[in-house]
Amino acid sequence: MITKNEIKLVKSLQIKKYRKEQQCFVVEGTKSVQELISSSFEIETIYASAKFLATHKTLLSSYTENLKIVDESILSTLGSYENNTNVLAVARMSTPQISQLTLDNVVLLLDDIRDPGNLGTIIRTADWFGINHIICSKETAEFYNPKVIQATMGSFARVKAYYEELVEVIKNHPQVPIYGAYLDGDNIKNINITKPAFLAIGNEANGISPEIGNHISQRISIQGFGKAESLNAGVAAGIMMFALCS
Amino acid sequence: MITKNEIKLVKSLQIKKYRKEQQCFVVEGTKSVQELISSSFEIETIYASAKFLATHKTLLSSYTENLKIVDESILSTLGSYENNTNVLAVARMSTPQISQLTLDNVVLLLDDIRDPGNLGTIIRTADWFGINHIICSKETAEFYNPKVIQATMGSFARVKAYYEELVEVIKNHPQVPIYGAYLDGDNIKNINITKPAFLAIGNEANGISPEIGNHISQRISIQGFGKAESLNAGVAAGIMMFALCS
Repeated sequence: MITKNEIKLVKSLQIKKYRKEQQCFVVEGTKSVQELISSSFEIETIYASAKFLATHKTLLSSYTENLKIVDESILSTLGSYENNTNVLAVARMSTPQISQLTLDNVVLLLDDIRDPGNLGTIIRTADWFGINHIICSKETAEFYNPKVIQATMGSFARVKAYYEELVEVIKNHPQVPIYGAYLDGDNIKNINITKPAFLAIGNEANGISPEIGNHISQRISIQGFGKAESLNAGVAAGIMMFALCS
Repeated sequence: MITKNEIKLVKSLQIKKYRKEQQCFVVEGTKSVQELISSSFEIETIYASAKFLATHKTLLSSYTENLKIVDESILSTLGSYENNTNVLAVARMSTPQISQLTLDNVVLLLDDIRDPGNLGTIIRTADWFGINHIICSKETAEFYNPKVIQATMGSFARVKAYYEELVEVIKNHPQVPIYGAYLDGDNIKNINITKPAFLAIGNEANGISPEIGNHISQRISIQGFGKAESLNAGVAAGIMMFALCS
């Protein structure tokens, strides 16, 4: 049974202010909730339809603590995806501490990725290529935004995002090379990177900011042959991870 | 001066049924309208704010035929992007004929790409890598959907999309090899393709359909090292184009 107050609370988590206040976020759909259950996130409540529970007994067998059966009609109003009549979870945010990060692979530096879909896609791609840590500028979209969580397709459960002043992080690791994409950089196909390394991904409209640009060790480039001015940020990041990390 | 009927007509073009009926589509924002003007598309009308006209004289100098000045408050309601108070154009659709397509490079085969954002991103990436022709299954998102046009960032003006039965197209070109991505394919980093070639891009949820799968000449794979189950369709397509066409 879900109370009116509880409905209000869950719905409020679509908004950043209330996520911050409650320190909770929403995870929607079978695949994402499955990843959440296997992760180290602390789950507050899982809301599922009776039909979903009947067909997904195994999925929820490892979670029985705070499970509520909710009408499909109510469930579909709780999150941002109207067609979700299956399952939705509320979990506690966790804030990974950069002091605990050991650099042993490629780490992404997101220099103001504003679009939640792009951030989610970058997290999903990072997970595919075995990159587990992403350092985000403070202006980057919020990790716990429902659109980000959705676009990660479950990878939010494995990839850690640290929101930091990028320049500070760079200065604290003077020995780590920083690769960044520019139109006039060296052809990425000819680059062999030394790990650990930072890979800087620029803002959708403006690319890498001058502040970060000053610290780039090697300017790299995805060679184009047509007339498009640029690539989508998620696609460019994906190609860079593929070229440098696989 | 824009009439009430005209406002209604332009707004109706957000919906596929009315686009089909009118054989017209909407292009929003400075960059996209600029590309439209330089393209071979026939423009019906350009609606611009007085402020925009004052600051973009050069852009519109090559188009003076049917230019209307519209209040910013009205302009922002005409399209799908609320923050567009600059310029919006209505243009006539054109339907490229596959009989006129000469295969001399890589041609994409989109096997039910349903998400307009993904289709737009794929068109933009294709344009970057010099791929000018895309053959779409009939279930693929519509080229003239405003979200597609927007996501192409102007590349809609250069890349041609043909909506066809993919199997028919494949059968008509028995000598052209077809590359398609599968989890168990050969590492794409070791592939040298022979051009012309078809590159098949599978549906977001289901990958390449069995019908198309039967015709694949070489199964290729983007090697992953993490735990993500898959890549975003736009990112996977981008990595394939990068690996095979650059």
